[in-house]
Amino acid sequence: MAGLIKGPALFLAQFAGDDAPFNTLENITKWAAGLGYKGVQIPTFDPRLFDLDKAAESQTYCDEIIGICADAGVVITELSTHLQGQLVAVNPAYDQAFDAFAPKSVHGNPKARQEWAVDQMLKAAKASQRLGLNVSVSFTGSLIFPFLYPWPQRPEGLVEEAFKELGRRWTPILNAYEDAGCDIAYEIHPGEDVFDGHTFEMFVDAVGGHNRAMINYDPSHFVLQQLDYLAFIDIYHDRISAYHVKDAEFNPTGRQGVYSGYAGWTDRAGRFRSLGDGQVDFKGIFSKLAQYGYDSWAVLEWECCLKSPEQGAAEGAPFIQSHIIET
Amino acid sequence: MAGLIKGPALFLAQFAGDDAPFNTLENITKWAAGLGYKGVQIPTFDPRLFDLDKAAESQTYCDEIIGICADAGVVITELSTHLQGQLVAVNPAYDQAFDAFAPKSVHGNPKARQEWAVDQMLKAAKASQRLGLNVSVSFTGSLIFPFLYPWPQRPEGLVEEAFKELGRRWTPILNAYEDAGCDIAYEIHPGEDVFDGHTFEMFVDAVGGHNRAMINYDPSHFVLQQLDYLAFIDIYHDRISAYHVKDAEFNPTGRQGVYSGYAGWTDRAGRFRSLGDGQVDFKGIFSKLAQYGYDSWAVLEWECCLKSPEQGAAEGAPFIQSHIIET
Amino acid sequence: MAGLIKGPALFLAQFAGDDAPFNTLENITKWAAGLGYKGVQIPTFDPRLFDLDKAAESQTYCDEIIGICADAGVVITELSTHLQGQLVAVNPAYDQAFDAFAPKSVHGNPKARQEWAVDQMLKAAKASQRLGLNVSVSFTGSLIFPFLYPWPQRPEGLVEEAFKELGRRWTPILNAYEDAGCDIAYEIHPGEDVFDGHTFEMFVDAVGGHNRAMINYDPSHFVLQQLDYLAFIDIYHDRISAYHVKDAEFNPTGRQGVYSGYAGWTDRAGRFRSLGDGQVDFKGIFSKLAQYGYDSWAVLEWECCLKSPEQGAAEGAPFIQSHIIET
Amino acid sequence: MAGLIKGPALFLAQFAGDDAPFNTLENITKWAAGLGYKGVQIPTFDPRLFDLDKAAESQTYCDEIIGICADAGVVITELSTHLQGQLVAVNPAYDQAFDAFAPKSVHGNPKARQEWAVDQMLKAAKASQRLGLNVSVSFTGSLIFPFLYPWPQRPEGLVEEAFKELGRRWTPILNAYEDAGCDIAYEIHPGEDVFDGHTFEMFVDAVGGHNRAMINYDPSHFVLQQLDYLAFIDIYHDRISAYHVKDAEFNPTGRQGVYSGYAGWTDRAGRFRSLGDGQVDFKGIFSKLAQYGYDSWAVLEWECCLKSPEQGAAEGAPFIQSHIIET
Amino acid sequence: MAGLIKGPALFLAQFAGDDAPFNTLENITKWAAGLGYKGVQIPTFDPRLFDLDKAAESQTYCDEIIGICADAGVVITELSTHLQGQLVAVNPAYDQAFDAFAPKSVHGNPKARQEWAVDQMLKAAKASQRLGLNVSVSFTGSLIFPFLYPWPQRPEGLVEEAFKELGRRWTPILNAYEDAGCDIAYEIHPGEDVFDGHTFEMFVDAVGGHNRAMINYDPSHFVLQQLDYLAFIDIYHDRISAYHVKDAEFNPTGRQGVYSGYAGWTDRAGRFRSLGDGQVDFKGIFSKLAQYGYDSWAVLEWECCLKSPEQGAAEGAPFIQSHIIET
Amino acid sequence: MAGLIKGPALFLAQFAGDDAPFNTLENITKWAAGLGYKGVQIPTFDPRLFDLDKAAESQTYCDEIIGICADAGVVITELSTHLQGQLVAVNPAYDQAFDAFAPKSVHGNPKARQEWAVDQMLKAAKASQRLGLNVSVSFTGSLIFPFLYPWPQRPEGLVEEAFKELGRRWTPILNAYEDAGCDIAYEIHPGEDVFDGHTFEMFVDAVGGHNRAMINYDPSHFVLQQLDYLAFIDIYHDRISAYHVKDAEFNPTGRQGVYSGYAGWTDRAGRFRSLGDGQVDFKGIFSKLAQYGYDSWAVLEWECCLKSPEQGAAEGAPFIQSHIIET
Repeated sequence: MAGLIKGPALFLAQFAGDDAPFNTLENITKWAAGLGYKGVQIPTFDPRLFDLDKAAESQTYCDEIIGICADAGVVITELSTHLQGQLVAVNPAYDQAFDAFAPKSVHGNPKARQEWAVDQMLKAAKASQRLGLNVSVSFTGSLIFPFLYPWPQRPEGLVEEAFKELGRRWTPILNAYEDAGCDIAYEIHPGEDVFDGHTFEMFVDAVGGHNRAMINYDPSHFVLQQLDYLAFIDIYHDRISAYHVKDAEFNPTGRQGVYSGYAGWTDRAGRFRSLGDGQVDFKGIFSKLAQYGYDSWAVLEWECCLKSPEQGAAEGAPFIQSHIIET
Repeated sequence: MAGLIKGPALFLAQFAGDDAPFNTLENITKWAAGLGYKGVQIPTFDPRLFDLDKAAESQTYCDEIIGICADAGVVITELSTHLQGQLVAVNPAYDQAFDAFAPKSVHGNPKARQEWAVDQMLKAAKASQRLGLNVSVSFTGSLIFPFLYPWPQRPEGLVEEAFKELGRRWTPILNAYEDAGCDIAYEIHPGEDVFDGHTFEMFVDAVGGHNRAMINYDPSHFVLQQLDYLAFIDIYHDRISAYHVKDAEFNPTGRQGVYSGYAGWTDRAGRFRSLGDGQVDFKGIFSKLAQYGYDSWAVLEWECCLKSPEQGAAEGAPFIQSHIIET
Repeated sequence: MAGLIKGPALFLAQFAGDDAPFNTLENITKWAAGLGYKGVQIPTFDPRLFDLDKAAESQTYCDEIIGICADAGVVITELSTHLQGQLVAVNPAYDQAFDAFAPKSVHGNPKARQEWAVDQMLKAAKASQRLGLNVSVSFTGSLIFPFLYPWPQRPEGLVEEAFKELGRRWTPILNAYEDAGCDIAYEIHPGEDVFDGHTFEMFVDAVGGHNRAMINYDPSHFVLQQLDYLAFIDIYHDRISAYHVKDAEFNPTGRQGVYSGYAGWTDRAGRFRSLGDGQVDFKGIFSKLAQYGYDSWAVLEWECCLKSPEQGAAEGAPFIQSHIIET
Repeated sequence: MAGLIKGPALFLAQFAGDDAPFNTLENITKWAAGLGYKGVQIPTFDPRLFDLDKAAESQTYCDEIIGICADAGVVITELSTHLQGQLVAVNPAYDQAFDAFAPKSVHGNPKARQEWAVDQMLKAAKASQRLGLNVSVSFTGSLIFPFLYPWPQRPEGLVEEAFKELGRRWTPILNAYEDAGCDIAYEIHPGEDVFDGHTFEMFVDAVGGHNRAMINYDPSHFVLQQLDYLAFIDIYHDRISAYHVKDAEFNPTGRQGVYSGYAGWTDRAGRFRSLGDGQVDFKGIFSKLAQYGYDSWAVLEWECCLKSPEQGAAEGAPFIQSHIIET
Repeated sequence: MAGLIKGPALFLAQFAGDDAPFNTLENITKWAAGLGYKGVQIPTFDPRLFDLDKAAESQTYCDEIIGICADAGVVITELSTHLQGQLVAVNPAYDQAFDAFAPKSVHGNPKARQEWAVDQMLKAAKASQRLGLNVSVSFTGSLIFPFLYPWPQRPEGLVEEAFKELGRRWTPILNAYEDAGCDIAYEIHPGEDVFDGHTFEMFVDAVGGHNRAMINYDPSHFVLQQLDYLAFIDIYHDRISAYHVKDAEFNPTGRQGVYSGYAGWTDRAGRFRSLGDGQVDFKGIFSKLAQYGYDSWAVLEWECCLKSPEQGAAEGAPFIQSHIIET
Repeated sequence: MAGLIKGPALFLAQFAGDDAPFNTLENITKWAAGLGYKGVQIPTFDPRLFDLDKAAESQTYCDEIIGICADAGVVITELSTHLQGQLVAVNPAYDQAFDAFAPKSVHGNPKARQEWAVDQMLKAAKASQRLGLNVSVSFTGSLIFPFLYPWPQRPEGLVEEAFKELGRRWTPILNAYEDAGCDIAYEIHPGEDVFDGHTFEMFVDAVGGHNRAMINYDPSHFVLQQLDYLAFIDIYHDRISAYHVKDAEFNPTGRQGVYSGYAGWTDRAGRFRSLGDGQVDFKGIFSKLAQYGYDSWAVLEWECCLKSPEQGAAEGAPFIQSHIIET
């Protein structure tokens, strides 16, 4: 008697650190397993936990990684290439800010940075294949996000051209993932050009309806833009192959709405919370995913403006467990 | 027996055109008066209606303008310098798009464009004084709007420095308005750095609490970011000295939320509507303004994604009239 | 083809004044008729408009009153004895404050004041009979309103004894109204012991289910205590024989709820408004009254914390007219 | 890794009784600790648990009290002087009802009762100091609560004078608490003159902004008056130094609203409930308190019209524990 | 400057009667025009107004009908064949009740009744063509409506077979309408097998996606089943070619929900109302129809459980007029 | 210290099967007890679990049944005769579908089927008496359910006559239950003629107010018709003597409302869910039942379109346990 949705799993990115048990894959997987997690999503951009170059080339290394996880009692759910995917497309307004995600050698050189990012993406395809994974999670990057709001009026053709260019950049990458038997499940996220259902549709069109262009469903980003995240599943369930279980809340006031006044996370009307502390209707989400036969992982992504990460991680595993519907 | 709130008035910017009766101040004011408007807000950037250079210098010209309006049966409520105010501060990402608001001579030259804009603002102060007006309406411009969402993480000090710079640019302008006995009522608006209550507070701090830094209250922009526009009045009523009566609606779906997928106005979850067709609680707004003793104008700003401008203007005057509370 | 509900009518109490047209019945009825009112509710406690002593005794005077109204084009809907009814039962805590409603001769003498009030009520029965009216409107007064909230714990039997005493005082009065063929429609109102449905039921029990103990339905007082005023009609429609059309709103904040901090009317979370400016669902009320066959008057009672009485009265008549359902 | 908010704790007043384990401090603290409570709030007016006279004078006694608690495994969170604080100011309408809180020797003698109450308050300051406590909880009492509703019209100056008198009475008491290094956290409560945010502000003004005049935040009393208890925290968090975790619900009908028809607790539209059974959004409250750095106790106050006290107490400790946010 | 949506128009069925002005087409169209209607929808089953047999055969008669309308100042919007369409498919449970819609000669003979109905439908196609109409309105009839609720469990294949049979019956009729250049806009309605969007889709499939199988959009029937009638337009706008402007309300209680206890119309939780008296968001409907370019008629269908038909008709024309959006 | 409401209990009908542990009363009661259930509701129509003929006649058999349950650690809460009660009254439209509930010998013979059903009901009365049970649960059956919606117009007198006939059929059965000291608690359910409060009132009238005609309260059927299931308890609590704890949800869309398009359970807007997964406010229900002194059983009925029965049953027991209020 087992549910189709797998979980609970944990995205390790926000927990990795220089101190034990957060400093090595061995330590952090044991810690995660001890909290009840059955899977981990590995950030390929954190060398404390994972060496992407090595994983792309060496089956031995990948087997070791699998073994470390198995010893801890977890499996790998997906590789994350969020930061590299982001760098596949960067609007110049963010060049400086996003250089931090790339090696120093390409700082100040957007073209080289992009090439590095593409190479990373291709390596992650290989690594996923070696690890036996058929889904990975990433970002689309952004070419025109500063033109989010229609003021000033957008130059004629700006949007169309941007998505065409995204298509040109991502199609070959997606082809490589097809070869590797692996999806790229894009996290729909403000700051990326693909930030809602409408932009995801434009993206899928731009990559010719590529069957590896999938969605990493994360309702927290939808709460923060007040999109109907349950209806989203009704529309796009065929394209959802990953799931970040992340909570959020939106509490507008007379001082702030969605845009939240350039404030930091704690002081924003919209902000991320630990599971169960926000407004996301997880009962509804798990019901819909069960109804549509979603059979991949439910992965906690934790960012909370109030609660400690340790409490957040500890509460997250039983929270997800209690929401899984056995069908 | 007369109400404290004055109205109805009409902002002429969206109506001005090359064909009669929209092509001259004489014609358009007669048309407006015929619909029941008692005041007009004049865009200083539309040469078909108004010559700002002349108005700044010539009392005769200003008296003529007043006379034209009086003949039509309306008064001038405020001068609008939205476009020039916008150009006082422009983020490079929008340089090209915003050049359209400036004379060709300064295109491609942000520094010259800014100087032109400042000069325009100063001229509008003079012109307001000559016209006997104590309020004008404008925009703050924007230095960091592409960093609206906190991804990528904003460079340290970015927000603080941007508002300091806004303060440096606007303080001398505001001083000139003080000399002219006139407010600048800034329209709080996405795309500007002052887009909600929180950013307005930062701006007021940046200009040393200047008593001419006021608000042009427009609820439509608050609906589109889901800010509590009634509570806004409770907090900021002391700084409100102009009022754009403009309707809007926000209907999120599974495809779109606030950000609305780079779509055009008709296809957005959040969009502007004609008075009474949207979701703004005007009964609540007029009640609060009456309660706090707002005694300036209620000016229709019309932009509607569905209805014809003629119908919108014709329905707007009685709509506003019926909402005015005599106290 | 005429609706069963009669209206619009106007309660004159809040409009009577020393200046024309508010200073005589002749003037004020003409003014009311000019606004579109078809009936007037006359306060028997305002000597500028009505002499209750005379009306109780003289058919000639009553015929004159009827004639004055007829000349103006209105009819009398009900006599109001709110203030006298109030004085039939007064808790000592309010003795001083309520003396203002009585003649000086009984000030400081609660027993004499009560006797005066009862006599007034009896005279109003007579007067109603002479005027051909079968409904009057009043208050029950209050014996224990300071014990509204159950802190301190109420003395054993306090509530039961208070309602018994109300029954003893009101039963003979109601009998006199039975003889006069006239209801007393009590306005359910905080400050009175009968302030909601539950207390009205206790009151009806205390007067032995007297068939003249009826309700003057006024939804504004229900909004201000958040009682379900539509369901109220479903339950009590058989006892409703008068209707004050009065609007109200309740806007709680972090500073105030229903009790509204000893504040004055403008500054309270709950406050009265002009028709259409508040939150009362008049469409729902008129529908329910039509459904249950209510066939008496719809009488505007106007108290508004913001709008001028003239505007309130002028807007009230068409407002009521447009809500009347012809069945 | 520990949260800033301390808890769970239990207010002992509603549990103290003549039978074990509710009959002595020793027994009741052991019982509370067995349920998971880490702190107890002690009613100074219950001689079965505490001797205030002795505690004010004897450090030895206070050390014994601390020891009893320590042996049981709990600490003292605050002393409660609700009943004595109530008697510092009593409206004559409630004289008889409130005498029950005072010794027989002062019954029927409001002046002596008040002096006794003030003396009690001063003793509780001393006792708090000896017990090492920097917060106590109490009531302000009431001088004009019968004039809660503005009918009859309040005598000119009534409210202003009442709060001045409250200020005169409480300022010296608060000064004594300042000397003792202890807050008086007033429970905002209908029946007291300080029953919402607005009246609390008037009170603080009346005591000259005294820095020991604090709030014992109890959301149940806000639900019952439909005040926005979350926004309350945004406004008054700097004055909150105690917290009663108490649930409530408000279910208005066609028969009852907030005032609830002189009915007893079970039959009221607004009534108290056990934690989790009512409508209070405790997730929201604990989030806001965490955000604003509240670092004192979360104390269960239990009064429920349906559930047994034993079940209420047993469920309360894990309920509070699960809501505490470690930051 | 004219709106795309045409109106107001009036469906004559509920108004036709034996007394003037409701007894002849000449009289009733003059009456309708006098109320402000610009179009009329004619029930082909009411011989007082229209002779379908003659219209199918005689162009002269049709020209006369057009002339009568033109003289009155209205045009014909659509022919209605609701009753005949109903009889194309009848579940035996309703045989007796539905016989009333057919001529006596076929009573008790379902097969003959069906043949008569099909013949009527074909004649209405001809008549529409002669009258120059490209839309007509009707019902689908019902084969399995008693199996609306899944208890008892429906026999295997029941639904599929029923819709196949509907397809077999309607396809040739729709083909005849194609020949006549006219849509059948089916009113989606409980009692018919096509009662919501889902069943309409099944029907369209059953008739092979026939391009004349369209929708007569009537939101009142959607309110009464709590279907999202605005989202309905988003989904099905391409199939909407007629529009019944009809209001309704749903007010569930503890005694009744949607099914409303076999009660008559006045006593049901869900019931029809006159325009503006119910809960339909007509502002939203007209906005969506304008957005999607609906360019046919807005036709009042009036059935109200409370208001008189005369008042309903008189108020309906300006109500519709004020909602039409000129684009 | 024990609550008045008894539970958790489990209705065995949906769990009985041919495989252990669902195949015998002995096995299934042990399984239920192992999940924490304290009572079982036994379907008298499932021979794998219960032999109604034997139970009606043999006290020995009944004692054995009691013993089997006692050995497992559960008691019998009620006997269920849903299917037999259904067959007491069947509309011809459902004759074929409902035959499945009866023995083959009466298939195609409605009269014989009805007689069999009545005999079953009488036997269940006897069996209940032998088992010491004072409540049983059943259905009323249906004579006119195809006329649920008032289209076509119902034949004159149809409803009245149907309820009279129900009264004639059920009164003698209810009398037999009176003799047996046992209620029939009818489950109010679409498909039965008693499907809401209004029809239950008609039924009680039809059986002369019989004091054994009670209600098996099941909120899931009320959610699916949007009836106010909490107010239902306020009105009918005196007639509630059984309680099915069953969850449901209603999520209307642009395609479906309450009637849900002849779809199967998973694809309906209204559908049943496992406890806690739907929209039923069980906190409110248990509170009201506690308030009104309901002292019978809380019995899980499980039907869920998504979750496995094993998970549903396992989660149900602690869910019910946690909602029981000890008073």
